Amino acid sequence: MAGRIDGKALIRAIERMATFTDQSTSPFTRRAFTETYLRGREWLKSHFEASGLDVKLDAAANLIGRMEGLDRDRPPTMIGSHTDTVTGGGRYDGILGVLAGAAVASYLHRSGQSLRFPLEVVDFLSEEVSNYGAVSCVGSRAMVGTLSQEMLSRINPNGETLKDAIRRMGGNPDLLNAPLKKRGDIAAYMELHIEQGPVLDTAGIPIGVVSGIVAIRRVKVTVKGQANHAGTTPMKARSDALVGASQVISFVHDLALDWRGSFPLVATVGRIEIFPNSPNVIPGLCTMDLEVRSISEEEVDTFLDQVEKAALDTSAKCHVSISFETASDAYPALCSENIIATIKEACSNLGYEYLEMPSGAGHDAMHVASIAPIGMIFVPSVKGLSHCSEEFTKEKHIIAGAEVLLESLLLLNEKLDVSYAKLSE
Amino acid sequence: MAGRIDGKALIRAIERMATFTDQSTSPFTRRAFTETYLRGREWLKSHFEASGLDVKLDAAANLIGRMEGLDRDRPPTMIGSHTDTVTGGGRYDGILGVLAGAAVASYLHRSGQSLRFPLEVVDFLSEEVSNYGAVSCVGSRAMVGTLSQEMLSRINPNGETLKDAIRRMGGNPDLLNAPLKKRGDIAAYMELHIEQGPVLDTAGIPIGVVSGIVAIRRVKVTVKGQANHAGTTPMKARSDALVGASQVISFVHDLALDWRGSFPLVATVGRIEIFPNSPNVIPGLCTMDLEVRSISEEEVDTFLDQVEKAALDTSAKCHVSISFETASDAYPALCSENIIATIKEACSNLGYEYLEMPSGAGHDAMHVASIAPIGMIFVPSVKGLSHCSEEFTKEKHIIAGAEVLLESLLLLNEKLDVSYAKLSE
Repeated sequence: MAGRIDGKALIRAIERMATFTDQSTSPFTRRAFTETYLRGREWLKSHFEASGLDVKLDAAANLIGRMEGLDRDRPPTMIGSHTDTVTGGGRYDGILGVLAGAAVASYLHRSGQSLRFPLEVVDFLSEEVSNYGAVSCVGSRAMVGTLSQEMLSRINPNGETLKDAIRRMGGNPDLLNAPLKKRGDIAAYMELHIEQGPVLDTAGIPIGVVSGIVAIRRVKVTVKGQANHAGTTPMKARSDALVGASQVISFVHDLALDWRGSFPLVATVGRIEIFPNSPNVIPGLCTMDLEVRSISEEEVDTFLDQVEKAALDTSAKCHVSISFETASDAYPALCSENIIATIKEACSNLGYEYLEMPSGAGHDAMHVASIAPIGMIFVPSVKGLSHCSEEFTKEKHIIAGAEVLLESLLLLNEKLDVSYAKLSE
Repeated sequence: MAGRIDGKALIRAIERMATFTDQSTSPFTRRAFTETYLRGREWLKSHFEASGLDVKLDAAANLIGRMEGLDRDRPPTMIGSHTDTVTGGGRYDGILGVLAGAAVASYLHRSGQSLRFPLEVVDFLSEEVSNYGAVSCVGSRAMVGTLSQEMLSRINPNGETLKDAIRRMGGNPDLLNAPLKKRGDIAAYMELHIEQGPVLDTAGIPIGVVSGIVAIRRVKVTVKGQANHAGTTPMKARSDALVGASQVISFVHDLALDWRGSFPLVATVGRIEIFPNSPNVIPGLCTMDLEVRSISEEEVDTFLDQVEKAALDTSAKCHVSISFETASDAYPALCSENIIATIKEACSNLGYEYLEMPSGAGHDAMHVASIAPIGMIFVPSVKGLSHCSEEFTKEKHIIAGAEVLLESLLLLNEKLDVSYAKLSE
């Protein structure tokens, strides 16, 4: 059953999209809201049309290509991702999901098949962190109604509001005070994406079936000691905030490394500041950002409980005080059990080995999850590299991902026909 | 034999000096080269004169009060310290040594005693780190000929060179291309100073007999890992530079805490920077400043050898590379064995308990040590606090320090008479 996707055409489309880049910063940069991005979308519109899709922009300037189903009254199944990149980004992140969506549509168009449900292929506006007050996932948030008026009022360094930028992209931001889609308006959403981590590449497995997008908890850790003279203060008389912090960092790393929970968990201290940060003064104060990610919020809680408990010992041992304050807390977005089962069935039908895994990174799918059942398919990133020009996914894996997306859509189309209510629960 | 120092007059002098302060920054700030500093020195000149000293400024704008000895041809014994403070500093650091010097002179003057050697009481210019490219110990360096032309050309934030600032203070910087004093020009130098650490206060001992001023080794530690996505990179696939750094910090602290050498040793990581220092990125690079202080350079070497050896294990365990580069290396300035013995004898004569200890902080004495035998006397700093407005030394300890300084000078004066050659070795 494989070989339905025109792999060469898909690879050519990816190469073509990579020509719409701002070479001045790095080979493959295409920031949302730029002229380069608009030119890329102009080509994408023609590519969608050539794939048998009717193209429009919604009020959030999401580019949507639609293929009617046998039953026009049913809500569409939606597949896609985004075509914007980070500065210095690569050729696959997001782009693969959009162009594989077009490849799926193209197969249906060429083979003259009609699905029971309408199909929509979406290029969400500005998934990456934007220059407008760091708002990300602009298009998917706007679609489900969580792009707030406050976010719309944020400005880029040139003083343009996000609202005006969306209008400039062809959207109608005046309509964004209400959700563009509500529960029931999308039958199911599937996103093919590069893994952006090393798990599949290391394991030599072509397909990741995503269980969900992890919860992200950010905690501000403050270690208070006593700044003092680094020459005249004996070791035993010190309250060194950095020494206390180093114990926390080590404990966090070791606990996550040996985590015995039911789900993978990662924990990172990515930011640290100490005061006064002078070579001859014992650090008196240290602040750190600790980030914990897991598909299970319960395990994040358990992890942080253990860290806080260990910090009590560190406080006593190092004569410092350590406090923890939750800075932000993003809920996990679980993938639909039915769609997970469908993607696995597709892999089996096509003979691809797969691994069920969480997504450690955020995606448009996590916003769509608030109104529709979602599923995600991962393909390997060579060496786990992403958000850099070296980002690469092998041709055979690109094609495998697109084939699995197509097969899953076909299976889902049958299932949706009989059990739509169940899927959208 | 105690009771020779006029304690009340000494305390009054300290209180008086504390009135020459720039209240806008903190209660007791008196930065070198300011108008406030000049007004303080104007009063100090009259105070020196009232203590029986003839006052002059040398070419480095060190304020020197001189009392002739029986033999005018002998080199002087010198006692003193400095009257400038750090921003936000206190009332005792440096000031005590200068005013206790005047109190010693005043006793000799009042009692009509003449020493065999001339006595000079010195207020060294700008001991604290100056605003002129961070040059410290301006006056003592200049006296011994180690204030370089490069240092003299450094400027403060207003663009004034250190050279011009010295001229403004009344010095003659054109003469500073050669040492103002050479070996043999000073028979001995003694400096009474507050400890600036908690050792004497904690032990309840009034006098510290300083063995020497510690060697200070600064080492730049670089930990290289691999920056990566904090969500998609499994714990086992990470090369986290901050995790590697935290192991080094802990090891350094624990090794210094349990140091089994013949001399006290302190080690501090006072500065740390990580890159990219973002909450959702695994730190790829970390640089730290490690500072090690001991009176024994050999033990500093041994300590750093052990740290570097442990870092090899950390490198392997954390998948990072760790390198060490010596950034600066200040030799220890050992106190003269004869002067140490003399100060101990003075303590015994006066019935004061004492503790022999290194000075963990730098002082003017360490520069004078390059041309003359030196000795230092410490008195307790309450809670070890210094370089802050809470800096405090009890009246009884101030008087004890001045009494020991006087007694040491009298004993030394006798010894110098018979064994000068030995002392200046």
